[in-house]
Amino acid sequence: METNPCNTAVKSGSSIPSKTSRKAKAEDTIVDVNGVKFGDTEIVVIAGPCAVESREQLFETARSVSKNGASILRGGAFKPRSSPYDFQGLGEEGLMLLSSIRSETGLPVVTEVMDTRQMELVASYADMIQIGSRNMQNFPLLKEAGICGKPVLLKRGMMATLKEFLNAAEYILAQGNNQVVLCERGIRTFETSTRNTLDLSAVPMLKSLTHLPVIVDPSHGTGVRWMVPAMAKAAVAVGADGLIMEVHYQPENALCDGYQSLSLDEFSGLVTDLKKIAVAVDREILIPKTVTA
Amino acid sequence: METNPCNTAVKSGSSIPSKTSRKAKAEDTIVDVNGVKFGDTEIVVIAGPCAVESREQLFETARSVSKNGASILRGGAFKPRSSPYDFQGLGEEGLMLLSSIRSETGLPVVTEVMDTRQMELVASYADMIQIGSRNMQNFPLLKEAGICGKPVLLKRGMMATLKEFLNAAEYILAQGNNQVVLCERGIRTFETSTRNTLDLSAVPMLKSLTHLPVIVDPSHGTGVRWMVPAMAKAAVAVGADGLIMEVHYQPENALCDGYQSLSLDEFSGLVTDLKKIAVAVDREILIPKTVTA
Amino acid sequence: METNPCNTAVKSGSSIPSKTSRKAKAEDTIVDVNGVKFGDTEIVVIAGPCAVESREQLFETARSVSKNGASILRGGAFKPRSSPYDFQGLGEEGLMLLSSIRSETGLPVVTEVMDTRQMELVASYADMIQIGSRNMQNFPLLKEAGICGKPVLLKRGMMATLKEFLNAAEYILAQGNNQVVLCERGIRTFETSTRNTLDLSAVPMLKSLTHLPVIVDPSHGTGVRWMVPAMAKAAVAVGADGLIMEVHYQPENALCDGYQSLSLDEFSGLVTDLKKIAVAVDREILIPKTVTA
Amino acid sequence: METNPCNTAVKSGSSIPSKTSRKAKAEDTIVDVNGVKFGDTEIVVIAGPCAVESREQLFETARSVSKNGASILRGGAFKPRSSPYDFQGLGEEGLMLLSSIRSETGLPVVTEVMDTRQMELVASYADMIQIGSRNMQNFPLLKEAGICGKPVLLKRGMMATLKEFLNAAEYILAQGNNQVVLCERGIRTFETSTRNTLDLSAVPMLKSLTHLPVIVDPSHGTGVRWMVPAMAKAAVAVGADGLIMEVHYQPENALCDGYQSLSLDEFSGLVTDLKKIAVAVDREILIPKTVTA
Repeated sequence: METNPCNTAVKSGSSIPSKTSRKAKAEDTIVDVNGVKFGDTEIVVIAGPCAVESREQLFETARSVSKNGASILRGGAFKPRSSPYDFQGLGEEGLMLLSSIRSETGLPVVTEVMDTRQMELVASYADMIQIGSRNMQNFPLLKEAGICGKPVLLKRGMMATLKEFLNAAEYILAQGNNQVVLCERGIRTFETSTRNTLDLSAVPMLKSLTHLPVIVDPSHGTGVRWMVPAMAKAAVAVGADGLIMEVHYQPENALCDGYQSLSLDEFSGLVTDLKKIAVAVDREILIPKTVTA
Repeated sequence: METNPCNTAVKSGSSIPSKTSRKAKAEDTIVDVNGVKFGDTEIVVIAGPCAVESREQLFETARSVSKNGASILRGGAFKPRSSPYDFQGLGEEGLMLLSSIRSETGLPVVTEVMDTRQMELVASYADMIQIGSRNMQNFPLLKEAGICGKPVLLKRGMMATLKEFLNAAEYILAQGNNQVVLCERGIRTFETSTRNTLDLSAVPMLKSLTHLPVIVDPSHGTGVRWMVPAMAKAAVAVGADGLIMEVHYQPENALCDGYQSLSLDEFSGLVTDLKKIAVAVDREILIPKTVTA
Repeated sequence: METNPCNTAVKSGSSIPSKTSRKAKAEDTIVDVNGVKFGDTEIVVIAGPCAVESREQLFETARSVSKNGASILRGGAFKPRSSPYDFQGLGEEGLMLLSSIRSETGLPVVTEVMDTRQMELVASYADMIQIGSRNMQNFPLLKEAGICGKPVLLKRGMMATLKEFLNAAEYILAQGNNQVVLCERGIRTFETSTRNTLDLSAVPMLKSLTHLPVIVDPSHGTGVRWMVPAMAKAAVAVGADGLIMEVHYQPENALCDGYQSLSLDEFSGLVTDLKKIAVAVDREILIPKTVTA
Repeated sequence: METNPCNTAVKSGSSIPSKTSRKAKAEDTIVDVNGVKFGDTEIVVIAGPCAVESREQLFETARSVSKNGASILRGGAFKPRSSPYDFQGLGEEGLMLLSSIRSETGLPVVTEVMDTRQMELVASYADMIQIGSRNMQNFPLLKEAGICGKPVLLKRGMMATLKEFLNAAEYILAQGNNQVVLCERGIRTFETSTRNTLDLSAVPMLKSLTHLPVIVDPSHGTGVRWMVPAMAKAAVAVGADGLIMEVHYQPENALCDGYQSLSLDEFSGLVTDLKKIAVAVDREILIPKTVTA
């Protein structure tokens, strides 16, 4: 093809990210979120509602998932929504609720930050900062995540190549923060029967290219509740270091993403199944100490 | 969106395929290839070289895979190649070699047909007819497959929606042949680190939409040899009824697709691992009778 | 990216097509269809119905387009349809109708062939053979097109890279037939408001890579009737050597693709507008001799 | 397809953007940037370097384009780069240089803002605020753009549906700012010979769905310098209200995107050609008053 050789380079990012590469660091990086470790033999399960909607919704959901295999609680206080008229999250009130239920259950909390101006606030409440798909190339936000002092959950952009994904991580590592967990959450294709196409091949490819842990989000990856268990099992089989899943105590009443959220019982049953797959690949699902204690 | 409502319909095929649908037939269809059954509890492994290159290559490969977990032998005699100057296959000589090694190993043989004029010839040698990705919407060929009297392995087009895939199957079923196995083999996306993006979510979605068995091709789905085991395990975990994988006794010397073919030892080791995953999802890898006998 | 270098090569075809390349032949190839020349200064307009449905439909449409700027008549006798239950075309009866109206209007006829077994029949009626998108990599069909003795209109696959497209053309040229016109007709993307995404950048890129003429199909490229004029104008501005458009004397009653077919008046008005664009890029719309005579 | 009806809705944004829709406002919105009007009969040309690199580079380029058809000057002071190690822009120094050359040439200035914390600063220098592709769904930034008091140039995300694009605009309009120009700049597909695939069909589709002006960026849309003129001509023919193009006085020495930047002479020659196309579609290229004065 007689095209400018620059194009290919540009297409997937213009330089090799050096700190993120396996070549720079051969051994796996362990990301430690208040004692919950990603990248080790044990597989970490993150669960919780898409958005924090109310004390009852969050607490009921958190109590259940904490007893049934979740090691970290997820819940959005600031929500990125396609339309300005959709529910935008509870803001700081949501952060306070997350903090409150953490005290009760002992589960560390991960929540999304969307604005550089909110980083300090969110980091003061959360145990792990999430950078969402739509912000994977929000470079000022990545730089703030690099200096926020907390581990970061970085979701792959829905249109990002793996090289661009690693370059985004490099923005965080370049600030001195190597506590970054990568999350595959589905890419956009022509297929319309699922919300996104979960790219599980990203897991082994990323693990060969980088020393950072890699987890999978089968909830956004499919957008279809009944498909989540099958894809979660496949994610464990393919070698993921963890899962992040949307769980709601009343999915049918959720303000956000109810159609892809597991019920409390579905979540509990799924973890039981995941344990069997984990054993088959010589790993195990992490049992949180807070529950066993 | 103020667009013509026809467009959406047209985009993924203009009518619901009736014979292929679960609504038409709730129970799983079992596809029987000389006693090897797809769609049952047991998971079928198809293995063999991309192309039949020589007696030695085919026989060495076939003997090994038949002893190590393959139930059906694959091997191309007529090869669809992007360039007219690439190796195009041995033609009928390849078919004769496949027939010959079948007599020795007892493994049924699946091989691709690309031309309506070859259907009768190929069906006279093969136990199962393969329709490749590039021919998924070769409608005259699908019709011939519907009347050829043999089970059909239909591969998903690399940019086909699931609805188009089911409509393609419908062309075969409409001729009275319901012995069709669907195969997910990777779709085309913007990602360049893999040859295709293996869409494992297609497996549960297809199994909810149709009664036909669904298998996965991790060799073409990734185009990267070392990724095949991880994706094969994920395919079993996600619920696939079988796998089709390229195996070559000397991958580095293959005339075709060597970079994605497993060696004999890699294949053997993989099947051992797959057995563990199969148990974890309450299934098992089919052990061919010919070997146990 | 530490991946197998083979992958990139494989992704877009494993060898450079030699006869199709500009490097092999610097000057533009003129494709001559019974005196109508593609690749010259004049821009060729092909028009007609998606499918031949009846004598009245074909003749009324053909008479009108022949007087209003079309140089070649299109019309499908064998139709590739996603579903086996959709109208499949009139077959040889359709070919006979095309032949009959050619005698009256003097317009050469282009029609699609889908099956190697039909090539001789179709070539005996048609002035130009069309290979449709779904058959762009139907290699046996391409070989037959290479020896059929007629010019070929090759449509880009809806998922094909430009390199794969050129390799498909190479299959025809390799048989000694260089009378090939390439047609961009829209590719598949994530966008749902149009049937396909018309890739007009393919026109200048193809014309830099190959000596073959390149035309555009804005009807399939959008799937939306009211968008066809805008895209047709853009196609002329971008440097296309021709256009192929669906026109129907009663679009609302069409058996196939009515939602993207222009009415007779819309077609006539569009050609008037296209003439102005053609002048602005130092070209002109070809006026068929049969009409001026 | 027996899937959750929610999915389709979610896929392209969960509500119809009301203020952006043609249904809410039938007549075209005119966006006025210091007297330069988008959405009127005249077509606006924005030109300038990818990034402001130095006084000499900016001033030489600006002086030339201002005399040769540009009505607005572009130039990045804060650059979103895939890698943290690439040139990130001159920051406020770049803004001061833009302000300085505006005083000389009279051309209004458009420049990108990436961080909510920079909005006030950038808006104090720029005449028009650019939101880049990677920030199309940076919702806090969109809200700030809605209250910044300046017109906004909103670029389509490289994998955004048109509905998501309109929802992003709605975030700005919802804050009371309807001075928004939409920009198609290429989407990501499987094709590798161009940097992106310029989706010109987005222009007529957007203009039917919304009252906002729509312009095209053929520089990013192709990533290939020699293709820019052909695509710019097609953009005018298809009905775009303007163009934004990268021009550099020494493309071969550019710190950023030189391979897709036009030279001063190429730009000048292109505008001459664009005038002819504009006339052919009953429009004209806007001649800035500052130059004619």
